[in-house]
Amino acid sequence: MTTSEAERSAMRRALALAATPGVPLGPNPRVGCVLLAPDGTTVAEGFHRGAGSPHAEVDALARAGAAARGATAVVTLEPCNHTGRTGPCSEALLAAGVSRVVFAQADANPVARGGGHRLRQAGVEVVGGLLADQARAVNEVWTFAVTSGRPFVTWKFATTLDGRSAAADGTSRWVSSRAARLDTHRLRALCDTMLVGTNTVEVDDPALTVRDEADEPLDVQPLRAVMGLRDLAPDRRVLDDRAETVHLRTRDPHEALAALFARDRQHVFLEGGPTLARAFLTAGLVDEVVTYVAPMLLGAGASAVADLGIGTIADAVHLDVSDVTVLPGDDGEDTNVRLTMTPGPTPGRTSSPTPSPTPRRT
Amino acid sequence: MTTSEAERSAMRRALALAATPGVPLGPNPRVGCVLLAPDGTTVAEGFHRGAGSPHAEVDALARAGAAARGATAVVTLEPCNHTGRTGPCSEALLAAGVSRVVFAQADANPVARGGGHRLRQAGVEVVGGLLADQARAVNEVWTFAVTSGRPFVTWKFATTLDGRSAAADGTSRWVSSRAARLDTHRLRALCDTMLVGTNTVEVDDPALTVRDEADEPLDVQPLRAVMGLRDLAPDRRVLDDRAETVHLRTRDPHEALAALFARDRQHVFLEGGPTLARAFLTAGLVDEVVTYVAPMLLGAGASAVADLGIGTIADAVHLDVSDVTVLPGDDGEDTNVRLTMTPGPTPGRTSSPTPSPTPRRT
Repeated sequence: MTTSEAERSAMRRALALAATPGVPLGPNPRVGCVLLAPDGTTVAEGFHRGAGSPHAEVDALARAGAAARGATAVVTLEPCNHTGRTGPCSEALLAAGVSRVVFAQADANPVARGGGHRLRQAGVEVVGGLLADQARAVNEVWTFAVTSGRPFVTWKFATTLDGRSAAADGTSRWVSSRAARLDTHRLRALCDTMLVGTNTVEVDDPALTVRDEADEPLDVQPLRAVMGLRDLAPDRRVLDDRAETVHLRTRDPHEALAALFARDRQHVFLEGGPTLARAFLTAGLVDEVVTYVAPMLLGAGASAVADLGIGTIADAVHLDVSDVTVLPGDDGEDTNVRLTMTPGPTPGRTSSPTPSPTPRRT
Repeated sequence: MTTSEAERSAMRRALALAATPGVPLGPNPRVGCVLLAPDGTTVAEGFHRGAGSPHAEVDALARAGAAARGATAVVTLEPCNHTGRTGPCSEALLAAGVSRVVFAQADANPVARGGGHRLRQAGVEVVGGLLADQARAVNEVWTFAVTSGRPFVTWKFATTLDGRSAAADGTSRWVSSRAARLDTHRLRALCDTMLVGTNTVEVDDPALTVRDEADEPLDVQPLRAVMGLRDLAPDRRVLDDRAETVHLRTRDPHEALAALFARDRQHVFLEGGPTLARAFLTAGLVDEVVTYVAPMLLGAGASAVADLGIGTIADAVHLDVSDVTVLPGDDGEDTNVRLTMTPGPTPGRTSSPTPSPTPRRT
């Protein structure tokens, strides 16, 4: 079944609505919807503003009122068929009398999907896949999480040019420049969870809050997750009331990610030390690596990356570089270089975990 | 004293002549010269083609013949006042009846300089300093060498993202991508000397020849210098007849550079292992650092940089980044990143050596 130029144009508009800046982050995908009258003119627009608020289709239907009858709904994600905090969009579209639905990305969520089928059964014309790649790009992490059943993991580390994270006496403030530290806070804010090990909490006592350029904490903070068997001393900064904190009493990365996924977490920013990173890396649970290289030589001191048990060059972990960004230093600070990379196959890497049945759109 | 628009235009042309591509590299500076008639029209042009061939002024005078009388010589470097393989340009300009000389860079060579003074004494109008910065840029390494009395040292090393140059079993072929290795050959060709230690010759047995993209050796090869007290086994590849080789029987970087400078060497490409690099680094004898970062993790194995005796982060060697270049990999190879840097003050760094009286323009 084909689509009209008006529908394609409406889909581009719906994609822009989905990507509206400032929409609160949460476990739900970003979705936009445009309702078109039979003559191709726009009846109403809508988009989703985060968990608990109406889905894009319902938002648009509410604005359209009776004018939705006979309209075509152009929506960036297949309408859901699931009752979470809100009812199924498929039923809302049927109740409003929509006669045709054009969607982009098929719902990857095993629980919520099936809206297209439901609508077709009820006699509505349904076309899927229009600009689907662009729609997936809007919800890259959500798509990853619902299809693989675990959060996407970004491992961040800072290193000197010679692979050190601290000097021989343990001093490490600061290997990274101020520009690199600010950039790290920007990346933290794009995730919903920061994860460290109990050892990092013990030794470094980080606050793990996300701060803006003025060093003020943001209003919305990611979850602080600490993993490991050791008890946390009650005076640790990660236990203050500036953000929510969860202690995951496991050393197994799969278990930790499953626990976070059960809490609707989709994007983990792994900031622990080399040992924690090694556990995720060797388990094949690192999806992205962000490295800040400081143009500094120490010659000795703590290694930025732990012994991975790699004996020969052929077993090295190769990373695909997707971005290189130069972060100029000001006030005489070092220029740092940020590399963003994707791991290739890792020795000992396990297969993908089974998708979880946890509902993703609530 | 001021210069005319015709003289400024002629100087820009002389700078272009000085930088003529394909001129053989050698110990001499690149120089261009334009002779202007009193009405500002060009009488003749010349440039220097390498040691043993006429200097730029003499080249231009020969082309001008009798028309040089009363002309203005616009030249990118102060005319020399020294008899090497060719006679002093100051005398040649006087003999030709040139009435005015405009030069850019003052001759930094303690032996050859004084041409401007000699010409003034003989009644010629002399103006120096026009576009001097651009002229220095044409001969950056030469200017460094003649003013500091030693060759400029570029230290190159390749490293994994975690600071390793080889895996735990010693295997290191290849940490760098093919693109990075080709780029290294390009940089080698810009130097006049490659320097390694006897240990590298013993262990790695490198040919130390410069090869082109087809892996063929170039016609003109830099000097191969090996430093250290140990004798070289006669079957070592560095001793073959594909290029000249010198064995510097010293462990002292100052001594090694003095010996190379005495051989008219101006740009050393330091490719030895971490121990040799440390000796130069701690002696303050590294002027440029070129690092190829391979997006690869080993977790263990030989460190790319030796223990520098740095105990605390405040003593780290900071490098100023002047360039970051991404070298994309093809055929599934890693993308490498090249950082070009200048060392800041180094702990234990010694003061600059005394300029040597060795003649530089021969």
